[in-house]
Amino acid sequence: MSAHLIDSEIYGHLWGTDEVRELFEERAKVQSWLEILTVLAEAQAHLGIIPTRAAEAIRAYADVDNLDLTQVATLTRETGHSTLGLIRALQEALPEGAREWVYYGATVQDLTDTWTSLVLTQVTSVLRRDVARAVAAGRRLATRHADTVMSGRTHGQVGLPITFGFKAAVWSDELSRHQTRLEQVLPRVARAQLGGGLGTMEFWGDQAIPLLTEFSDRLGLGAPGIPWLTARDGMAEFVSVLGMVTATFGKIGQEVYQLQRPELGEVSEGGVAAVGSITMPHKINPEISEHLVTLARVVRPHSGMALEAMLHEHERDGRAWKTEWLFLPETCILSAAAVSMGSRLLEGLQVDEARMLQNLADRKGYVLSEPVMRELSTVLGKHAAHDVVYRSARRGLERGVSFEEQLRSDPAIRALVPDAALRAALDVTRALGAAPEFARRAGRRGTHE
Amino acid sequence: MSAHLIDSEIYGHLWGTDEVRELFEERAKVQSWLEILTVLAEAQAHLGIIPTRAAEAIRAYADVDNLDLTQVATLTRETGHSTLGLIRALQEALPEGAREWVYYGATVQDLTDTWTSLVLTQVTSVLRRDVARAVAAGRRLATRHADTVMSGRTHGQVGLPITFGFKAAVWSDELSRHQTRLEQVLPRVARAQLGGGLGTMEFWGDQAIPLLTEFSDRLGLGAPGIPWLTARDGMAEFVSVLGMVTATFGKIGQEVYQLQRPELGEVSEGGVAAVGSITMPHKINPEISEHLVTLARVVRPHSGMALEAMLHEHERDGRAWKTEWLFLPETCILSAAAVSMGSRLLEGLQVDEARMLQNLADRKGYVLSEPVMRELSTVLGKHAAHDVVYRSARRGLERGVSFEEQLRSDPAIRALVPDAALRAALDVTRALGAAPEFARRAGRRGTHE
Amino acid sequence: MSAHLIDSEIYGHLWGTDEVRELFEERAKVQSWLEILTVLAEAQAHLGIIPTRAAEAIRAYADVDNLDLTQVATLTRETGHSTLGLIRALQEALPEGAREWVYYGATVQDLTDTWTSLVLTQVTSVLRRDVARAVAAGRRLATRHADTVMSGRTHGQVGLPITFGFKAAVWSDELSRHQTRLEQVLPRVARAQLGGGLGTMEFWGDQAIPLLTEFSDRLGLGAPGIPWLTARDGMAEFVSVLGMVTATFGKIGQEVYQLQRPELGEVSEGGVAAVGSITMPHKINPEISEHLVTLARVVRPHSGMALEAMLHEHERDGRAWKTEWLFLPETCILSAAAVSMGSRLLEGLQVDEARMLQNLADRKGYVLSEPVMRELSTVLGKHAAHDVVYRSARRGLERGVSFEEQLRSDPAIRALVPDAALRAALDVTRALGAAPEFARRAGRRGTHE
Amino acid sequence: MSAHLIDSEIYGHLWGTDEVRELFEERAKVQSWLEILTVLAEAQAHLGIIPTRAAEAIRAYADVDNLDLTQVATLTRETGHSTLGLIRALQEALPEGAREWVYYGATVQDLTDTWTSLVLTQVTSVLRRDVARAVAAGRRLATRHADTVMSGRTHGQVGLPITFGFKAAVWSDELSRHQTRLEQVLPRVARAQLGGGLGTMEFWGDQAIPLLTEFSDRLGLGAPGIPWLTARDGMAEFVSVLGMVTATFGKIGQEVYQLQRPELGEVSEGGVAAVGSITMPHKINPEISEHLVTLARVVRPHSGMALEAMLHEHERDGRAWKTEWLFLPETCILSAAAVSMGSRLLEGLQVDEARMLQNLADRKGYVLSEPVMRELSTVLGKHAAHDVVYRSARRGLERGVSFEEQLRSDPAIRALVPDAALRAALDVTRALGAAPEFARRAGRRGTHE
Repeated sequence: MSAHLIDSEIYGHLWGTDEVRELFEERAKVQSWLEILTVLAEAQAHLGIIPTRAAEAIRAYADVDNLDLTQVATLTRETGHSTLGLIRALQEALPEGAREWVYYGATVQDLTDTWTSLVLTQVTSVLRRDVARAVAAGRRLATRHADTVMSGRTHGQVGLPITFGFKAAVWSDELSRHQTRLEQVLPRVARAQLGGGLGTMEFWGDQAIPLLTEFSDRLGLGAPGIPWLTARDGMAEFVSVLGMVTATFGKIGQEVYQLQRPELGEVSEGGVAAVGSITMPHKINPEISEHLVTLARVVRPHSGMALEAMLHEHERDGRAWKTEWLFLPETCILSAAAVSMGSRLLEGLQVDEARMLQNLADRKGYVLSEPVMRELSTVLGKHAAHDVVYRSARRGLERGVSFEEQLRSDPAIRALVPDAALRAALDVTRALGAAPEFARRAGRRGTHE
Repeated sequence: MSAHLIDSEIYGHLWGTDEVRELFEERAKVQSWLEILTVLAEAQAHLGIIPTRAAEAIRAYADVDNLDLTQVATLTRETGHSTLGLIRALQEALPEGAREWVYYGATVQDLTDTWTSLVLTQVTSVLRRDVARAVAAGRRLATRHADTVMSGRTHGQVGLPITFGFKAAVWSDELSRHQTRLEQVLPRVARAQLGGGLGTMEFWGDQAIPLLTEFSDRLGLGAPGIPWLTARDGMAEFVSVLGMVTATFGKIGQEVYQLQRPELGEVSEGGVAAVGSITMPHKINPEISEHLVTLARVVRPHSGMALEAMLHEHERDGRAWKTEWLFLPETCILSAAAVSMGSRLLEGLQVDEARMLQNLADRKGYVLSEPVMRELSTVLGKHAAHDVVYRSARRGLERGVSFEEQLRSDPAIRALVPDAALRAALDVTRALGAAPEFARRAGRRGTHE
Repeated sequence: MSAHLIDSEIYGHLWGTDEVRELFEERAKVQSWLEILTVLAEAQAHLGIIPTRAAEAIRAYADVDNLDLTQVATLTRETGHSTLGLIRALQEALPEGAREWVYYGATVQDLTDTWTSLVLTQVTSVLRRDVARAVAAGRRLATRHADTVMSGRTHGQVGLPITFGFKAAVWSDELSRHQTRLEQVLPRVARAQLGGGLGTMEFWGDQAIPLLTEFSDRLGLGAPGIPWLTARDGMAEFVSVLGMVTATFGKIGQEVYQLQRPELGEVSEGGVAAVGSITMPHKINPEISEHLVTLARVVRPHSGMALEAMLHEHERDGRAWKTEWLFLPETCILSAAAVSMGSRLLEGLQVDEARMLQNLADRKGYVLSEPVMRELSTVLGKHAAHDVVYRSARRGLERGVSFEEQLRSDPAIRALVPDAALRAALDVTRALGAAPEFARRAGRRGTHE
Repeated sequence: MSAHLIDSEIYGHLWGTDEVRELFEERAKVQSWLEILTVLAEAQAHLGIIPTRAAEAIRAYADVDNLDLTQVATLTRETGHSTLGLIRALQEALPEGAREWVYYGATVQDLTDTWTSLVLTQVTSVLRRDVARAVAAGRRLATRHADTVMSGRTHGQVGLPITFGFKAAVWSDELSRHQTRLEQVLPRVARAQLGGGLGTMEFWGDQAIPLLTEFSDRLGLGAPGIPWLTARDGMAEFVSVLGMVTATFGKIGQEVYQLQRPELGEVSEGGVAAVGSITMPHKINPEISEHLVTLARVVRPHSGMALEAMLHEHERDGRAWKTEWLFLPETCILSAAAVSMGSRLLEGLQVDEARMLQNLADRKGYVLSEPVMRELSTVLGKHAAHDVVYRSARRGLERGVSFEEQLRSDPAIRALVPDAALRAALDVTRALGAAPEFARRAGRRGTHE
């Protein structure tokens, strides 16, 4: 049984996806570490640093199923060393001729940093796949609802009408920039680590740099120009990109949460929950949307931790480096949950076009003060028109009449704006500006630019 | 197998203590939830809200061993509700006459917030016990080393001598203020929650407020003046206090880490590690000290999350509240590790008095420029004396001679300071100011003020 | 002209109050520093450390009007020292016999830390005054609106009715705890600093501790048990308390922002803005409410910085300490703006009782599912009742009829609930639970407990 | 007089550069805003939206020298609107025929966001110039000191020797990645904003999109695919990149701070400070190095604020957007200080090669345990060799003899390692691994990859 929510049997599905959580599970991690040690041995055998037979034996026996993890744990506590427990248990599992050739000259950070690079590469693939789904869903919404009129809101107040497709287009536009970011950050993260104790690769003498290349190539990782034991900028950037990705899904969730209020009722999460509130059976809560905000909040602070972890002292600094052990898996697992839920939310989003129109209508036309002002501007000038319309709108709101009724009863306006122009200015479908065009353009974009 | 370090079989001992981790483990949490539901039923029976027999049956059967947690997990995912899975599984475990009377009118937040209060109360006890150990250890160091002369350092440079007891006294003084803080925050945290869906306790009619009192009393928690479903200041304050406590231990760890450098070698962690570095067998790393800094860094950002979680919207806001689910256990478990390790570090700290004296001696007397300046001040005035001593010190350092040799060769000084006064000014044991007295005073304090 | 918003002529009123900003303005700060140096001289004269005449001259001449701040700035840059520029300029302003006796044995941190304690004490007074105003306003709202029925909302959805007084009571309850916190933190902040270079007070020999007491007493500050040059827990706690205070006002602002949406329209900021939106003349934005959230967001991260600043290395650590120079004034000034605006918001809040009732009515009775369920519970048991009511509510919502109509047409319910009971259950004023009582109790509280 | 350190006459030089601070000064900002309004008018005139004469008049009169900023401030407070005060004052400054055509259809965010893009573009240029200087300085150090032997340190303990050039190469490598990041983020930041009230550009009818292109082109900014009023990912990414840049300089500062300790004395800041400590005249503090850490700490939290600001609600959200007003200028100004000081630090860094060798020698050869172990590995196998060397090293340290003496007296080793091999293994210049080669490679890189 576990104490952290990420590992919770009951609630874990809200705080991660199985796919990404499994990458970080202890057993899978140890297996991946063993694979790295095997590849290291093979690269070393290839360069004649260790016997080929030793490498073959390591390939054959270095398997988590051959280890007793409880023994590894006990040895780790006893030695007070991060990998010595594992190495000793592994040596027992290996045939005699291989025992001395495993983990040959490497240090714990070579192992864990290389693993981190590999696992972040896998996480990046998962995230790119799901962000692409979200972008596609956003573009479909942009196209389908390019002309779906709804209230635009600033400062929580209704301003002019917009279209729902316009809103979705802003989302897909932002999400597509994250595709670029994930692509750009990858080569700065997917780099092998092989420095030995101090990063100088001293143990391997003249074969140091060839070994670095061979090891990196075999793992499908980049070979760094110099070991990055103390250069953690790649990690910080990665965490920051994931912070941005989850923030965008948090924004989308927040929007749905607000628009799903019964007083607005413009969109709602697709899936009808099987059960509502326990005490209030009539309620349907925006569970996913709300949780996307939660996830954005708990991922966000990791970017600060990652920036702090960049301040390594000397050639290795456990104070800084060990913080990554905690926040990197957490960031990845939580972000995977956000991206997965967020793309499903977009794919299943319900849009209530009638309610959108009704909400606009409930504002009695006042949201069209700008088109009226623009009409008047041609006669009075813009700022003068603003003052006239502003005063009239305030008066109408006080009187409780519709904007049209107010405007028709205001001699200052009646005198200046012809009836037809007024009618046109008070038509919500003519007050959408470039919203439909922006939406359609976003919808058409086939790939991210 | 688990994915989070806190739950790691291999590394978990570095990121928590068993004692506190167990409080948060899923099984223990569910058991504690069941106990709260039982107490609720008993309080309700006491007030005649539910039948006494129902309460008795709940007491008898509401046990985690009667539940299938995998079924709870499945039902939780199916219903999309935080506690309904548990309730349904619990109802199956109860005899028929009790099924309808369990969780009677309460909501998920009543359950989880009350549990949080209970568990934070327990965590507070643990932390107070261990902080008290650390305060005691710090005071012993203050007393024992009240006169142990060592280099004082500012900006990483050696200034005047201090004593090691003085340094330890600053630690124990700071730690004792945390004792006060833990005491003051407790009543703002140890409060029951019982509000029902909206905090109005509607379900219980006229018996609402008596029930709140009865329920709180039976749990040994305070009865809040009004439900705090959306008033999370207590949580934020608690997290902030734990952030301060771990910061102090981080500071102590940082100090030991620096003073244990081989070039300084003034203190060291007590326990000789069983094994040094794998690649560099001669090294002994300051494992605990370093890790105390790491723990301070990973706990710290939680204070920001907790402040953000205070901004609840309306009468319940899952976006904010659910973040607590993640950071509260993490804060408690990591802080417990820090306080436990930190008090052990203080208890076992090795002090090398000879090396401390040697390091001071290696500075060739220049660290005594202030006493010399003070001597000269009586003749020249302080600022004028500063300029004279400053110039002389710079010259001596350039020439590579000792401060004494330089001063004796500087006619400007020789003329003004008698030999005996100069000798006295250059005696490190006479340049300690009130350090020994401050140390002794701190050591004498029996309890925190 | 200035570059920071806090100093902006155009926008500064939104990011601080004149009262608190003035405490931190450079000229005022220098004047306060000079006052501290004067008190130090007087305390030293009292103890015979410096001549009484010198202290008198310092009292007479140490005035910012006697200094050329541009010269101070130039000297500061030239010397690369935080206070030497000031001291040299001050010495020029002093008569000859006093020049050598000013800043006698003190260091920059003695000066700046003592100033910080003084200024935080003043800031605390201002905040306590304004928080008290807010508490009083909140209690008035709680009393006045103890029975003002409105929608309670969880997860953005309407749940049961509450009363507006209940909501205001939660606010005042939370704010009153901040009064306690401000009171408790003060003695841990209002402490003089006088340590000299290393905190040992070496320069003053046997008179060190008497001088510490004398100096502290004269300033009205506590005398610390030991200098706190490297014990910054008081600062961290202070920043954390201000983070909590601004978070509460942020929460209140957020609530008003949401309730002021035109689709809800339940409360609004009192003052009618002179001008609405430039492009949309009909809009009235919740300017203050919105800004309270902004202020909470920009103050919040300071708590993390303050916790980090606790990790001082050795006897002075500029890396940590200098961060306080930046974040302490910013925290104070921004918090003062929040507390001032927030208390004004509460004092002027407009409540639209009719709209509150209308919004509830718009939900067609479904928000009363809990009272109906409770009624049914007496016959069926609670959880069985939940399932029946849940199904009926979902059906009614699909059919688009009122809850009453649905319930009356549902044979499962009609058979079990008598007409009178159903009518009672569907009366919002009978579904308020203890909300009015909680509100009245909060309103009655005369002082904070 | 100002209250914020960034604006401090006395201390401002430590918290910003004049060059970047001036970009954000209120007067300069208003001038830049007027220029944007002018370009908007010219673009609108070009498209026939407003009269050419009006645009010409705006070009002629829209100058900050024609405005009374105190009046702007007063009007801003009176109207409670961010730009209306400015617009009214500007209208007064304009000739009658232009008054109605200024700020035609734009909103405050069009103005401020576009200004932000312009100013961040300028800041990026400054930072790229100074980071390039730092990269060049780092590469020179890497080349010059490719073979300068010094202690490598992990966990604060001395491990194997490295070279100082290797350390500098890690710095320049990391800094060069920031050059790439600054280049990649720029197009996501340097985008004009022109959306009108809701982002739909409604006011400009059919000419909306042509106007967006024209306006962007004239300003030398990209034309966004859709207005980014609520898509703040570019800002968040920018702040995050600056956080990384300052973190790297913080790391370099931290390293110099530690290596400048008198007990290490391996490097020092170039410039001899004019004055040392006031109370301790012999001290030279690492002022710049220390301050680089401070700056990294105060910039870092801004990345969290920027991520939070991404969660905009609806079509404009002052709660989120206004936080940028505070943190963007602060981030830029503080970062500019860091980059400027950091590149100067690297350019002037003093390296004490003799001390570096001496410090290694002081470790009595034990730092060469790895080469000895490697030698022994060929006979015993690596892990067996580790155990033998580990035991011998511990014994030698206890006996207080040199590593060579210990090894020669250890029969287990003497029997296995020939004298010549032992001598070679104990030669620090042969234990550098690939450090010199890594350093030289980094030094050779002409541009960033």
